[in-house]
Amino acid sequence: MAFTLLNQDSESRARAGLFQTDHGKIETPIFMPVGTIANVKGVHQRELKEEINPDIILGNTYHLYLRPQLDVLKAAGGLHKFMNWDRNILTDSGGYQVYSLSGRRKIKEEGVNFKSHIDGSSHFFSPESVMEIQRVIGSDIMMAFDECIPYPCDYSYAKKSTERTHRWLDRCIAHLDKTPLEYGHSQRLFPIVQGGTYKDLRQFSAEYIASKDTEGYAIGGVSVGEPTDLIYEITETVTSILPKEKPRYLMGVGTPINILENIALGVDMFDCVMPTRNGRNGMLFTAEGIINIKNKKWREDFSAIDAMGITWVDTEYSKAYLRHLFTVKEMLGRQIATIHNLGFYLWLVREARKHIIAGDFTAWKTKMVQKLGRKL
Amino acid sequence: MAFTLLNQDSESRARAGLFQTDHGKIETPIFMPVGTIANVKGVHQRELKEEINPDIILGNTYHLYLRPQLDVLKAAGGLHKFMNWDRNILTDSGGYQVYSLSGRRKIKEEGVNFKSHIDGSSHFFSPESVMEIQRVIGSDIMMAFDECIPYPCDYSYAKKSTERTHRWLDRCIAHLDKTPLEYGHSQRLFPIVQGGTYKDLRQFSAEYIASKDTEGYAIGGVSVGEPTDLIYEITETVTSILPKEKPRYLMGVGTPINILENIALGVDMFDCVMPTRNGRNGMLFTAEGIINIKNKKWREDFSAIDAMGITWVDTEYSKAYLRHLFTVKEMLGRQIATIHNLGFYLWLVREARKHIIAGDFTAWKTKMVQKLGRKL
Repeated sequence: MAFTLLNQDSESRARAGLFQTDHGKIETPIFMPVGTIANVKGVHQRELKEEINPDIILGNTYHLYLRPQLDVLKAAGGLHKFMNWDRNILTDSGGYQVYSLSGRRKIKEEGVNFKSHIDGSSHFFSPESVMEIQRVIGSDIMMAFDECIPYPCDYSYAKKSTERTHRWLDRCIAHLDKTPLEYGHSQRLFPIVQGGTYKDLRQFSAEYIASKDTEGYAIGGVSVGEPTDLIYEITETVTSILPKEKPRYLMGVGTPINILENIALGVDMFDCVMPTRNGRNGMLFTAEGIINIKNKKWREDFSAIDAMGITWVDTEYSKAYLRHLFTVKEMLGRQIATIHNLGFYLWLVREARKHIIAGDFTAWKTKMVQKLGRKL
Repeated sequence: MAFTLLNQDSESRARAGLFQTDHGKIETPIFMPVGTIANVKGVHQRELKEEINPDIILGNTYHLYLRPQLDVLKAAGGLHKFMNWDRNILTDSGGYQVYSLSGRRKIKEEGVNFKSHIDGSSHFFSPESVMEIQRVIGSDIMMAFDECIPYPCDYSYAKKSTERTHRWLDRCIAHLDKTPLEYGHSQRLFPIVQGGTYKDLRQFSAEYIASKDTEGYAIGGVSVGEPTDLIYEITETVTSILPKEKPRYLMGVGTPINILENIALGVDMFDCVMPTRNGRNGMLFTAEGIINIKNKKWREDFSAIDAMGITWVDTEYSKAYLRHLFTVKEMLGRQIATIHNLGFYLWLVREARKHIIAGDFTAWKTKMVQKLGRKL
């Protein structure tokens, strides 16, 4: 077993765990910085490793397939070597991107025909091809090919789609068994629970997915526009069913508060573009609340960006200086905000883990949630 | 005297020197990275200091005056503190930027009326105001207010303008004497030789400027579209006249070859946007020649960006990876290319200095010039 459960909170479902792969440990709960096209935007790999220090990052199958393309990744010896990242990588299956290509894709039982967002060229993803692509990428954790249902979605389509996602999962598993490793290190497949916002479909899907003896499970089809409370309901429903001894990954969530609440509901792994994308727009997440650094109130505030000093940028630069960089639209501003936010997100999940192990997670979480959403 | 001449090449006018200020040493020949609006685009101050390691960087008076504005700089305690850079800073006088605002500025004896490129608001720069602005910025080396003549320019205008630049210099010096230091550390004024491409005007201007007992001199009005050979002629004319015991700064020049040739003609200090701007467009300067990293030939070249490894990015990333980042337009690509190019420019001037001190500069320069312009 790759995953070891170290402690479970007594007042919530929060868990601390350890996942071991050929690229090292993943201490859970974990936040995975999004490295869409073989890089985390604005962050050198060295900074990512030494300052932000995640055990795992995320890559996007759809984007990597289009660029740099598979022949380049294969010639490089896989994504780890191509981008010079020797820790863990998880890749999504392309399902979410295909869902985003609304109007440029056609879903059939066999798979999905879609047109590239870059040049309009036609491509086809199937459960089988997506397994082969992720073999070439060489990610440590591969996601099964699924359909991400929009919100809102009528019941009959949600049911039909969820059943198809299950059939696709069986095809993924069957094909993966026949597809050899490309680079020697092991790869693990995580299937994805779908079912939209319908509790019975989520239960149905969680039970089906749990019946597969994989080394971890994902909850997909959230963060697509539904109210936050529905995400919590879905998580609660699904984590009641998924086996406790395997890690659970909630895809695409969310704010610092969302992350703590979902940890409390039994989630172990997270990814989200929020710290990077919102950072590039001047929004900083801190333990005391949210800073809009473009605001004029910071014009002559020469205090450190974040006195906590989680990463070196926090005390190296002042709020007034960072505001100036955003005012003049210098890319250094986007770089600084990205490093700060990722540093904070990783601090947050590491702290959560410490408190789960120490046994006071719920009290700590309650206190943090009161501060994290404040506007500073 | 701030400047000490350590060695003079026997076969050229190349010199190795040492300039001492309150913010430390400046070993010459030096290349000054351009930090226009209080940052070198895409480069953290820590990387600039530790990896690229220049003794001095450049800021732009015109840009800093408009943003973050003088009240912010003053409240911060000057530009050094505002941007967290504790080594030397040289600021230009705004003369070049005003020249670039063609159609949005009016030059009179008193000074220059101009409209901001940001919001069209009206402003006025005079020799006196520019001294006061640079006091607030707190740069270690301040430039006198001058007019940068376009190329081509008729003789009568060039003469009239050069004479006015000289009168402006006298006003700068007179006003500076009456304007106290803002932050305690000393500031030095460098006057600027103008005269366009007319040898007699350059001689006239160099003699006038040399008659002022300042601690360094600049050659301006070059790199405005004239052929490279004319730059060399101007440099040769001017360095024949300027006192040997003071540093000479050639403004806005140039390619690696231009820099070596002008070092051979007696120039000590350089600045240019080329390593940063061209880097952001995918052009890499190396000791073996020039790389256009966007070229398809690098698609599967997994060798280091530059095996010399001057900065850590050179061996951290491969050519294929950097090409990919440019193909997908990720800012990390621009960051890497900028660090590489600045690292190379600083390496080049440090090597030049070593060879001047060792006594074999001319032989080394001849060999380097044959390689530096090659397309790889």
